[in-house]
Amino acid sequence: MLTLYSYWRSSAAYRVRIALNLKGLAYRQVPVHLVKDGGQQHASDYLALNPQGLVPLLVDEEGGGVHISQSLAILEYLDEVFPVPALLPVEPPQRALVRALALHIACDVHPLNNLRVLQYLSGELGVDDEAKNAWYLHWVRNGLAAVEQGLAVFGGRLSLGQRPGYLEACLIPQLYNARRFACDLSAYPRLLDMEARCQDLEAFQQAAPEVQPDAQ
Amino acid sequence: MLTLYSYWRSSAAYRVRIALNLKGLAYRQVPVHLVKDGGQQHASDYLALNPQGLVPLLVDEEGGGVHISQSLAILEYLDEVFPVPALLPVEPPQRALVRALALHIACDVHPLNNLRVLQYLSGELGVDDEAKNAWYLHWVRNGLAAVEQGLAVFGGRLSLGQRPGYLEACLIPQLYNARRFACDLSAYPRLLDMEARCQDLEAFQQAAPEVQPDAQ
Repeated sequence: MLTLYSYWRSSAAYRVRIALNLKGLAYRQVPVHLVKDGGQQHASDYLALNPQGLVPLLVDEEGGGVHISQSLAILEYLDEVFPVPALLPVEPPQRALVRALALHIACDVHPLNNLRVLQYLSGELGVDDEAKNAWYLHWVRNGLAAVEQGLAVFGGRLSLGQRPGYLEACLIPQLYNARRFACDLSAYPRLLDMEARCQDLEAFQQAAPEVQPDAQ
Repeated sequence: MLTLYSYWRSSAAYRVRIALNLKGLAYRQVPVHLVKDGGQQHASDYLALNPQGLVPLLVDEEGGGVHISQSLAILEYLDEVFPVPALLPVEPPQRALVRALALHIACDVHPLNNLRVLQYLSGELGVDDEAKNAWYLHWVRNGLAAVEQGLAVFGGRLSLGQRPGYLEACLIPQLYNARRFACDLSAYPRLLDMEARCQDLEAFQQAAPEVQPDAQ
């Protein structure tokens, strides 16, 4: 049994839902509300499961009950333990290119723009909404422009040729997040094309924030 | 031939130097100065190599000339192409635990505190030095406290038992960075113990910022 601690709007949790769906793995979802009760991820019962105090967290009972935090660690684990269908290409250079693009999103775009950081900007630093929005757009545009260039190697195909995988599981949630902040995406035609193909697939449709049990 | 585009003080480049040394791989180092000339990582000749405009970048001539950005993508590549000695444990649950701790540093601590973000806080947002320092310490303490708890599973050993690997390659540069910002580390005895063992090893000594050819 796989259990995913998740929040409907978390980009990182969304990545894992896509990956689980792409592999056709059944899982139980436990919602962790990132805002209610001062953030349920800070509650002692959740911190006992995941001291990092973030979502997602995957618990694999068959895997000795291992508790895995960090969305990309979960994607790597799923690809090792449930290898078919694969999320990553076969050859190391291609795997590296996919991971580098996914990590650019996961390390250099998303963490600067997630809820806890935006809360710190407003709360601790007294940054007004306009400057906070400019901060958001600065990092997301910067990051997406680099990913757009990086996608050139795929020549209009998905990261696994006809199939999406690791890269798309990271990209689609980032685009969803960018739209929430009214970021104009028209400068990134390769991203939009990749997104459109993914959105046709059930694995992505069923992972979307709005259709999660805890969506509001 | 392996070529590493690096900056002596970059935590992410430092991770890769450690990994290359742990594997005993020879490499040529090309310095990219992150401050001089308005940041050489923004120059068009560097962006042509790495559109992400960040260090490190690894070029592997034997691997078809692949250009790999993102330190963790490089570590994964090195472990796939030069598997002995390994950087990651063998079993998926243990690999996942190591990756989750490394990713917590690489995604949720370091990107908030690297040079470009601190420059944005001062320059664009007009944040004063005291508040900028408080920002730094907030994220680093938060992150290191979680890693400290996460290390409990190793029972005082290194991530590969008697040997360091992927986890230590991420942790030691983060501790170096924290010291630069005068962060008191005494609350993290497991981190300090792990660091002390690593600092005894040539692979770490020779990766240290101060002994790099571009150190100032």
